[in-house]
Amino acid sequence: MPERRPGRHFFANPGPTNIPDSVLRAMDRASLDFMESDFLDIYDQARAGLKRILFTEGEVFFYASTGHGAWEATMVNLFSPGEKVLIIGGGYFSGAWAALSRGFGIDAELLEVDWREGVEIAALADRLAADKAHHIKAVCAVHNETSTSVALPLPTIRAALDAAGHPALFLVDTISSLGCFEFKMDDWGIDAVVGGSQKGLMLPTGLAFTAAGPKAMAAHGKSTSKRFYFDWTAMLERRFRSFTGSVPIVPFFGMVESIRLIEQEGLQNVWARHARLAGATRAAVRGWGGNRGVELYCRNPQRYSDSVTTVLVPEKFDAEEIRTILRQKFNVSTGGGLAALDGKVFRIGHMGDLNEPMILGTLASVEMALTRAGLPHGKGVDAAMEVLHGA
Amino acid sequence: MPERRPGRHFFANPGPTNIPDSVLRAMDRASLDFMESDFLDIYDQARAGLKRILFTEGEVFFYASTGHGAWEATMVNLFSPGEKVLIIGGGYFSGAWAALSRGFGIDAELLEVDWREGVEIAALADRLAADKAHHIKAVCAVHNETSTSVALPLPTIRAALDAAGHPALFLVDTISSLGCFEFKMDDWGIDAVVGGSQKGLMLPTGLAFTAAGPKAMAAHGKSTSKRFYFDWTAMLERRFRSFTGSVPIVPFFGMVESIRLIEQEGLQNVWARHARLAGATRAAVRGWGGNRGVELYCRNPQRYSDSVTTVLVPEKFDAEEIRTILRQKFNVSTGGGLAALDGKVFRIGHMGDLNEPMILGTLASVEMALTRAGLPHGKGVDAAMEVLHGA
Amino acid sequence: MPERRPGRHFFANPGPTNIPDSVLRAMDRASLDFMESDFLDIYDQARAGLKRILFTEGEVFFYASTGHGAWEATMVNLFSPGEKVLIIGGGYFSGAWAALSRGFGIDAELLEVDWREGVEIAALADRLAADKAHHIKAVCAVHNETSTSVALPLPTIRAALDAAGHPALFLVDTISSLGCFEFKMDDWGIDAVVGGSQKGLMLPTGLAFTAAGPKAMAAHGKSTSKRFYFDWTAMLERRFRSFTGSVPIVPFFGMVESIRLIEQEGLQNVWARHARLAGATRAAVRGWGGNRGVELYCRNPQRYSDSVTTVLVPEKFDAEEIRTILRQKFNVSTGGGLAALDGKVFRIGHMGDLNEPMILGTLASVEMALTRAGLPHGKGVDAAMEVLHGA
Amino acid sequence: MPERRPGRHFFANPGPTNIPDSVLRAMDRASLDFMESDFLDIYDQARAGLKRILFTEGEVFFYASTGHGAWEATMVNLFSPGEKVLIIGGGYFSGAWAALSRGFGIDAELLEVDWREGVEIAALADRLAADKAHHIKAVCAVHNETSTSVALPLPTIRAALDAAGHPALFLVDTISSLGCFEFKMDDWGIDAVVGGSQKGLMLPTGLAFTAAGPKAMAAHGKSTSKRFYFDWTAMLERRFRSFTGSVPIVPFFGMVESIRLIEQEGLQNVWARHARLAGATRAAVRGWGGNRGVELYCRNPQRYSDSVTTVLVPEKFDAEEIRTILRQKFNVSTGGGLAALDGKVFRIGHMGDLNEPMILGTLASVEMALTRAGLPHGKGVDAAMEVLHGA
Repeated sequence: MPERRPGRHFFANPGPTNIPDSVLRAMDRASLDFMESDFLDIYDQARAGLKRILFTEGEVFFYASTGHGAWEATMVNLFSPGEKVLIIGGGYFSGAWAALSRGFGIDAELLEVDWREGVEIAALADRLAADKAHHIKAVCAVHNETSTSVALPLPTIRAALDAAGHPALFLVDTISSLGCFEFKMDDWGIDAVVGGSQKGLMLPTGLAFTAAGPKAMAAHGKSTSKRFYFDWTAMLERRFRSFTGSVPIVPFFGMVESIRLIEQEGLQNVWARHARLAGATRAAVRGWGGNRGVELYCRNPQRYSDSVTTVLVPEKFDAEEIRTILRQKFNVSTGGGLAALDGKVFRIGHMGDLNEPMILGTLASVEMALTRAGLPHGKGVDAAMEVLHGA
Repeated sequence: MPERRPGRHFFANPGPTNIPDSVLRAMDRASLDFMESDFLDIYDQARAGLKRILFTEGEVFFYASTGHGAWEATMVNLFSPGEKVLIIGGGYFSGAWAALSRGFGIDAELLEVDWREGVEIAALADRLAADKAHHIKAVCAVHNETSTSVALPLPTIRAALDAAGHPALFLVDTISSLGCFEFKMDDWGIDAVVGGSQKGLMLPTGLAFTAAGPKAMAAHGKSTSKRFYFDWTAMLERRFRSFTGSVPIVPFFGMVESIRLIEQEGLQNVWARHARLAGATRAAVRGWGGNRGVELYCRNPQRYSDSVTTVLVPEKFDAEEIRTILRQKFNVSTGGGLAALDGKVFRIGHMGDLNEPMILGTLASVEMALTRAGLPHGKGVDAAMEVLHGA
Repeated sequence: MPERRPGRHFFANPGPTNIPDSVLRAMDRASLDFMESDFLDIYDQARAGLKRILFTEGEVFFYASTGHGAWEATMVNLFSPGEKVLIIGGGYFSGAWAALSRGFGIDAELLEVDWREGVEIAALADRLAADKAHHIKAVCAVHNETSTSVALPLPTIRAALDAAGHPALFLVDTISSLGCFEFKMDDWGIDAVVGGSQKGLMLPTGLAFTAAGPKAMAAHGKSTSKRFYFDWTAMLERRFRSFTGSVPIVPFFGMVESIRLIEQEGLQNVWARHARLAGATRAAVRGWGGNRGVELYCRNPQRYSDSVTTVLVPEKFDAEEIRTILRQKFNVSTGGGLAALDGKVFRIGHMGDLNEPMILGTLASVEMALTRAGLPHGKGVDAAMEVLHGA
Repeated sequence: MPERRPGRHFFANPGPTNIPDSVLRAMDRASLDFMESDFLDIYDQARAGLKRILFTEGEVFFYASTGHGAWEATMVNLFSPGEKVLIIGGGYFSGAWAALSRGFGIDAELLEVDWREGVEIAALADRLAADKAHHIKAVCAVHNETSTSVALPLPTIRAALDAAGHPALFLVDTISSLGCFEFKMDDWGIDAVVGGSQKGLMLPTGLAFTAAGPKAMAAHGKSTSKRFYFDWTAMLERRFRSFTGSVPIVPFFGMVESIRLIEQEGLQNVWARHARLAGATRAAVRGWGGNRGVELYCRNPQRYSDSVTTVLVPEKFDAEEIRTILRQKFNVSTGGGLAALDGKVFRIGHMGDLNEPMILGTLASVEMALTRAGLPHGKGVDAAMEVLHGA
């Protein structure tokens, strides 16, 4: 039996994230035939609600899978072996997206960038201009790079495509941005979107989806990649316009409730709350930092993420030690550094169902962990309260 | 539909208190015959566990009732109309105990004391010495006066009884102390104990109990008070040695789990945790205070409560305004002032399933509420972190 | 660890009863201040809903207690020691009602009747006529005697009171009838009603209530009985018009959901469903019976209960053996015989959230248990299906 | 708002199936980092438990997917485009398995058989003997064809492979048999097994897996099929030896509890219970049938399925009408006919957490539905009780 860590677990991972109790309860339910009308009503409500959150009139294909499955689904349904796509680099997840594409024979070019800044739009524009023959079939962007907490300006990328007169599809991974900060698929000229259940949608891991607009559906018609489980053509023949085989019912009961909560609060208010709590988190990091202290990994204030903050730890300290103290002494879970950033950063997730005392309890625990780790720091919680008291 | 207040509700009431998720889940279960062996096993486990928490070998009578019911049960089972009891004053709850006793014709004398200090032991000793004829059948003490956050030194009171050679029963209300700080019924010579489910036992309101030792059981044999629902004699004839009529099963499934959690952590560790979090709360109040700021209502440092802190607000401020800000802006619930203290104090509960980020999130919210209310204050959260970082 | 009995437990007790999953989920929730507006809304909805189910405009006093507590509350709030009440006999529960009343000094006269028939209205009329001085302050009836499954015709009893020109209050225990078959407090001239959560209201045991009309409230004003926990006068001074001390929040979240379910189905439809399933149960008992077999305990077809069926077992058989087989072999729980009926009858509860396959699964299990017990029987399930197929 | 159908939904689908309440509660829990030791313990327990249920020492690869995903995973990890596999036909699912294999360029040959009998072992032996060059890389069998309720004798098939001296891998789909009737992967010489969460494992849809023995792992080493989400090589590099990307935690908390329940009952007892309830179901079908009535779709008594019974309806009746009556009048859900069997059969699932009153309630409802549909029938429930009373 593990040692008991009393009190509520503070889950400040950058996804999965806190699931509201009412969403958990909605999913705690007996089995139902997925062809039963009671479920079909729920399914239709969930699908329509998700389209409102995405601001799209396009198709939505759901998968019983994680986000990686949705990536695979999107690439094998849209492209054929040998076709070229341009993936905007900037962190762990864009790299993984490129690797998976290559695994299916797609010629994925990774546009390398400074991870702490995110892509230079001029460099992207140059690359597009250079592709005079339009070999690039798609430009792929991770809206919020969860590993670095750099968020990309999607309308600016769209504008770069338009300025170049480039016909490539515009694909976006919104896994850690949707439901956290502004995203408008159709208005922003995005052709396909990859998303998952376990972040801003406040659901457990295990449901993922692609939203696809008309240009994407046209591309699908030409794709020759082999696929079965994730095949959109087969899905379109079903009542659900989604899934092959069995349909999981549980996540849709949860989604109806999570979207109800989001819309009760108001999506704009949800975004504003994320911005406010993220601002407090960044104020805390600046308050802790100084000449030799922790600092924000993201150096570009225009691109600060409102769903996660990656904190860079000074060289002689180990970020994992801080995470261990947080977990063992204060029952607080944060994210670690991925791949090259392992041990160098820790990540504070502030997405989903979060409020002031939750983030302040987390930040106070981080501040105490810095103290315990002997890492010199200033007053971070005070700075965060200054942002949040709203007097 | 009420406005949505996102994130977890921070429940810092001095009872009911936070219920661990695993306790909630244990109670979320289908009906069962209360004479079914599956339930009898659970019941026996719960009863035995509660006796370990109480440190008693005595009887335990459970009631489907709140703490007020347990008070009534205890008085009508132990005393007869016209008998005299001495109730040690000090706050709202000791006053209510006296009032209820009088309602049943018991001659309850309330020993008046300074609420901010609690009873002077010398005064109690004088009163006992004066009762040469031993008219006083019981001395009744509220271990932790939830309204004032003054905790009484029960062994010292026992010693006063012994010194006086007084045969009165010693009755204690542990409603807001049991499971929070040290209490040992048999070792401390306590004859009867009143308790409830909804505080240190981390259960919902609705189950209450009396534990009764041999002297109390002897007194019960002589009581002529009328009773039915709460009658111990009827209860002793049942398999349960508790209850009249139906037996509620749900709270016992919860109690087995809550006691499992307490014992997994270790009761001594539970007490130490309460002391640590209470100390941080008091440090925060002192940090906020100063010449004209908030202050601890309890003036006797030997009697600080480890389960609740009553905070006195300067005269020209309204404690209720602070509570309203906490609730509406920060989703934090605190306790208000009871009766004469209404508007003058607010109360921060720190009992039950609590940890560092929970209390710091609460204290940070209080600090922001003071700012919003325009109440001058110093740095309280910093002081609390100083107590808690444990470096 | 007990042996696992697989599959769903079939709970055919005559209360507590099956709790719908959505009601369980509504109660599986974190703590909330009972003075918080979110709870007050729920409370008001529950109270208003219960009044619709009771068909009353009167007061409703809730207690954290079982039904026995509600009985006590009702008697001590309405009557004074020495006052006379007439309790219509007929089973275990009417006897207990009389006993409790006497415990508080009330002069309770139990009108003895044939338990298998229920009260003769003529005998009641005679008794009322004989009370020329109107010493009888109340006539008390158990609407559905859960021990015998005899249901009384309340409007007929009201008519007898009216015919006698007798001013006594008319008190009714609806614990096992409310939400099961027709009951209309105000229309039927009933002055006070005792009820509980755990039967037709499909909630766990632990919440009980009295509804009181104007004549009852007037009587309350004159009652000198001692009381505290159950005192209506104290309750009326509170926002809740109910409770002394803490207010349990959990059952009200459940009640709002259970009343929503009842009203979604339609109360008339709920009654019709109970009648249909009860009819099938009685058909099964008749199908099993014969010259020497089981038989319906209730001999008066006008008074068959639609919430429970008490089955009389032939003399040389032990009803408890059948119950044990049901429990151990088929995971089915039924009610046993109470007091004098112990071992002579078993009781099949068919109240609350029940449907055709549930009752048929239960009845089929009973039929198999009769076979295993060697008790000769005919075809009961076939007879029940004949009632229920509805072709 | 849909019409309320009161009482418990009787879910007699052949998967997903009834989830025990304690499994639902175990999954109703807050988020946790999947790298957190608390989760790793749970994961390891679940994986070890599943291997006990499978009777294997091999690898287990879990996927966030449905069973279709596990099929795909198995085929693309074991085979390369152009390789030949022999899929034993017999129903909807074997056909789908072949189709998916072909989609990935695998040369899947479907051995056509009489669906009501299942494969003739002699025909299989002939086919294997004819493959002198050992082009066939695998023989694929659906242990329990959920569409027809024909179960195959896996040891006999193994013996046929051995007799032919054929080196092909032996692959088995146990989706609707595992945890229902006997299956022993290693003892029976099975090289790879496809399974899912939502049938005998009593979990929701959404977790699937492949178990792979040494011969399968060797084949994996040579497979050149493109894959990413389902790639075993990537999985083997992780702590989990499973999954790419995020790890869903919820199903593993459920699985630990479901396996605990299975092992508390005893796996042999679980199989015996399935056999008993299946036998009762078949007795009911025979009881209903006759010259012109319903009949068992499976004609081979050696191959009756203990997890599902497919019931053939006489030609002039529509099986869907019976299912609609069951759903709308009796709140009972059954499975429909798949593809060619649509309207011709309905399917009664009797797998997972089931007992006597559940199946009898279901069968009684079916009998009443036959009556309502005007389909002549005999006494089925009586026949089922005869099997189950066990006197």
